Amino acid sequence: MGNQYAIGVDYGTNSVRALVVDLATGAEVGSHVFNYPSGEAGILLDPLDPHLARQSPRDYVAGFLTSVREAVLQAADAEGFTPQAVVGIGVDTTGSTPLPVDSDGTPLAMKEEFEHEFAAQAWLWKDHTSHAEAEEITKLAMQRNEPYLAKCGGTYSSEWYWSKILHCLRTAPKVAAAAHSWVELCDFIPAYATGTLHPSRIARGICAAGHKAMYNEEWGGLPSAAFLDALEPGLSRFRYITKAVASDKVAGKLTAEVADKVGLPAGIPVAVGAFDAHMGAVGAGCGEGVLVKIMGTSTCDCMPAPLSKELPDVPGLCGIVPESIMPGMYGLEAGQSAVGDIFNWFVKNLAPAEFGEGSDAHVNLTAAAAKLNPGESGLVALDWNNGNRTVLVDPLLTGMVVGQTLHTTAPEIYRALVEATAFGALTIINRFEEYGVKVEQVINCGGIAEKNPFIMQVYADVCNRPMKISRSGQTCALGAAIFGAVAAGAYPNVEAAQTKMTGVKSTVYQPIPANVAMYQKLYKVYRTLHDAFGTKEFSGSLHTVMKDLIQIRDGARRGRLLNS
Amino acid sequence: MGNQYAIGVDYGTNSVRALVVDLATGAEVGSHVFNYPSGEAGILLDPLDPHLARQSPRDYVAGFLTSVREAVLQAADAEGFTPQAVVGIGVDTTGSTPLPVDSDGTPLAMKEEFEHEFAAQAWLWKDHTSHAEAEEITKLAMQRNEPYLAKCGGTYSSEWYWSKILHCLRTAPKVAAAAHSWVELCDFIPAYATGTLHPSRIARGICAAGHKAMYNEEWGGLPSAAFLDALEPGLSRFRYITKAVASDKVAGKLTAEVADKVGLPAGIPVAVGAFDAHMGAVGAGCGEGVLVKIMGTSTCDCMPAPLSKELPDVPGLCGIVPESIMPGMYGLEAGQSAVGDIFNWFVKNLAPAEFGEGSDAHVNLTAAAAKLNPGESGLVALDWNNGNRTVLVDPLLTGMVVGQTLHTTAPEIYRALVEATAFGALTIINRFEEYGVKVEQVINCGGIAEKNPFIMQVYADVCNRPMKISRSGQTCALGAAIFGAVAAGAYPNVEAAQTKMTGVKSTVYQPIPANVAMYQKLYKVYRTLHDAFGTKEFSGSLHTVMKDLIQIRDGARRGRLLNS
Repeated sequence: MGNQYAIGVDYGTNSVRALVVDLATGAEVGSHVFNYPSGEAGILLDPLDPHLARQSPRDYVAGFLTSVREAVLQAADAEGFTPQAVVGIGVDTTGSTPLPVDSDGTPLAMKEEFEHEFAAQAWLWKDHTSHAEAEEITKLAMQRNEPYLAKCGGTYSSEWYWSKILHCLRTAPKVAAAAHSWVELCDFIPAYATGTLHPSRIARGICAAGHKAMYNEEWGGLPSAAFLDALEPGLSRFRYITKAVASDKVAGKLTAEVADKVGLPAGIPVAVGAFDAHMGAVGAGCGEGVLVKIMGTSTCDCMPAPLSKELPDVPGLCGIVPESIMPGMYGLEAGQSAVGDIFNWFVKNLAPAEFGEGSDAHVNLTAAAAKLNPGESGLVALDWNNGNRTVLVDPLLTGMVVGQTLHTTAPEIYRALVEATAFGALTIINRFEEYGVKVEQVINCGGIAEKNPFIMQVYADVCNRPMKISRSGQTCALGAAIFGAVAAGAYPNVEAAQTKMTGVKSTVYQPIPANVAMYQKLYKVYRTLHDAFGTKEFSGSLHTVMKDLIQIRDGARRGRLLNS
Repeated sequence: MGNQYAIGVDYGTNSVRALVVDLATGAEVGSHVFNYPSGEAGILLDPLDPHLARQSPRDYVAGFLTSVREAVLQAADAEGFTPQAVVGIGVDTTGSTPLPVDSDGTPLAMKEEFEHEFAAQAWLWKDHTSHAEAEEITKLAMQRNEPYLAKCGGTYSSEWYWSKILHCLRTAPKVAAAAHSWVELCDFIPAYATGTLHPSRIARGICAAGHKAMYNEEWGGLPSAAFLDALEPGLSRFRYITKAVASDKVAGKLTAEVADKVGLPAGIPVAVGAFDAHMGAVGAGCGEGVLVKIMGTSTCDCMPAPLSKELPDVPGLCGIVPESIMPGMYGLEAGQSAVGDIFNWFVKNLAPAEFGEGSDAHVNLTAAAAKLNPGESGLVALDWNNGNRTVLVDPLLTGMVVGQTLHTTAPEIYRALVEATAFGALTIINRFEEYGVKVEQVINCGGIAEKNPFIMQVYADVCNRPMKISRSGQTCALGAAIFGAVAAGAYPNVEAAQTKMTGVKSTVYQPIPANVAMYQKLYKVYRTLHDAFGTKEFSGSLHTVMKDLIQIRDGARRGRLLNS
């Protein structure tokens, strides 16, 4: 299979990356990052509403053209590469990031009339303006005893498709009236590149539809018109998807116009799009029993499970969607709403001068935190500064730190925050296993996994499992390239492509038994706080929390003295 | 009464201050501060044990001689002053700060043999090495159904007299064997200055004995020998006090030797000593219904109540002791183990560079925090970084902050910590009133009250009461001087002296109704956390805590938008 290539195009929150990959080896021979020019780091913000986060569709189009063109130019330096050797293109994006389009499929924001309207832009995944609507959807589904939420953890999110559309209907009637349809970003890009924007032609991916729009063939696709209109009369006119498909299918073929602009031949197949985390999981090597954690500002946990097995509804999971990650398997998705974002928040707002600023402060706080032993700080934190996605599915939760004395230091708190995110990760793994989905291996990818051995060791110790790291640093784009290759028929299926194109690094973080034992004690405290503040059912006592932490701390400090 | 003066000598944690006061007006005509030369800021520390805090008795003696001499020299510049016009001296000190003495009353630490022994030094109030012993004392008193703890909130503290002696007996047998008796610092200084160190002659103050050593005439003085020996055989040999007396009594007269060294005539009466907070309360103008809050690194709340009234045992109060604050009245004492210390901790460990360092950071964080409206941060903290003295009487409690998002700022947390201490203050006032002790007025003194209008406004708003500020900035030394004057017979009683010598500033912090309303909501959240983490009895739910805070926050922010 020498001299065959695929291109993965990965739309992140602030930029888009194109990656040219050798199909035989997974070698990455060309890549380019395009930063969205609009707003603040690509995000349109409203000074009056901190919940609002939108993006310009024009940035997306410019990002496709520039990143692919430059990546192809760079690949030209690799031996054996020619643009003609590119067999397929795959696309992954953030989501749920829907944008309103007109009857031709043109984004409203690209029309002069709506250019400056917030509501006409793409509603970025982390836009939380629709939290009231999300609650309303959850409540109505429960009242009507609808099955729709069973696959998304029982609670609909403010980040998701219908919440956003409903909020638009309620607050921006002009835009809502002009919208013929709403399109997820991951469907928009392949449609744009292949000239299939028209509503009659656009391919809708199962990943976005299933995880965010309550699409499931069990109940005949999208929620019923009656349900949608009960939320808001007229909402059902956006009930457009008849059949959502997996990303091993072709969305269309590269148009001559786009091909010309990016320096590729026309007609290259472009795969149906999906979310970054899901394609990232594939690029990292996910499979049955292999959980992939994509660790960045937030964390997404993905694992496929065989369609053949009876799979229970797992409460609190963001989604269980057939074929959303890998064709022929259930896609299971969980996640933590903030991980790196919590450390960044701490550094930006609470790092004292002696640790420096920005990335210096991360390095210095990490070094100081790494010198501490588990339990020594007497602190436990909750990792909810941006709510809790799994297993509580509740955006109306907040962060917490308990155990401070007059001697508590910044590195101690930094470490407690790292540990809190690891406890959150363990809670997710436990939830999978409580419902019979065995987690045999954990492969990590993303910035934190790549760059921070301290954090990965804490995760290994807290989860009491080896933590592996994906070989590729660009798993999302690599996963997209894999789907490009599979859709083009260069591999018979995703697994076959993964065998050749993915792998893990030789460094594996192994759990250290003494740390594991200490973290088992601390996790009990975390879990008590988690259940007390996060659930209605908790009936235990918090009276011993601070005392337990003091006892753990004193024990850990004695242990250090004895060993020194 | 022109041309009459008294001297107050105030032993703080890091230094001693002498103050020369005009009896007719309260004018402060001479003063000097002596910093203890030993250890770290006067405190002997053990690198192996963060709970240990001792002081050198030699520092105390040097401190008396230097501070009084220099204050008298300075007073000499005032019109009408002569050393012969000094009619009395009063002494206040930290406590419980006991030191072991030999059969002549000489501190063991001043003898070559024990000079370098930690156990032979003075055990500073904030030494917490004895927490296990404190628990043991509480437990035994409860088991035996003894009345001893009824007057100190039901729980004996690791900071107090018997805990410390018991710990010494258990851990430093040589020092324990050499100790003939243990003397509180507030009894030691008057005895030293008047040559009455010998155990048969030393006056023991009711303030220290009653608040820290479980002395009460209701049960015949100190706890019974049987009780003490049940704690540790032999402990009862330190059951030395036959009669403890109030500070309107004379401990002795200035010896020729000491008088010579400080530039005063011999024979001046020196009053029986008491704790700084209690004399400070007198210097600030306490009285029936007038609560004095002494606000510094920690806070002490003092209020006298008529002996004639039937006073219930108030659970959680540090102490209810006849005559401990003012002769002829009950002395009621409560307190918060850390107030300024919490703000200092935050500034030292968590203030980002942009706010500067040390006192600059306090100023800048205060300015930024003052711009926020109550409730806007969505945060609530518990003020327990150094445990909780009143009303929970539990050193094994720790700090907590809840409500953090990814946007929470340092000034928001700083403000939440200030508010937490105010909620703690309100909890104390409420406890007084729940048991029928009406708080009609609050007078504040100490560094925070003097220097920080922002904090005082928060206290006024949280407590929904005007906050007055003592006219004198040196209320402890002034109170000591008042007792010097009263013991010497220059005034018939403390109240008469207060009328002439104390007062409040014209600036009074008045509660702002809108803030009061917001803080009533936030206090409910504080109280839920307080009871959940601090008591065994709590049976409520914490599930709404974070949601309530978000609702309060969003309401407060909307309020600001509407008003802007």
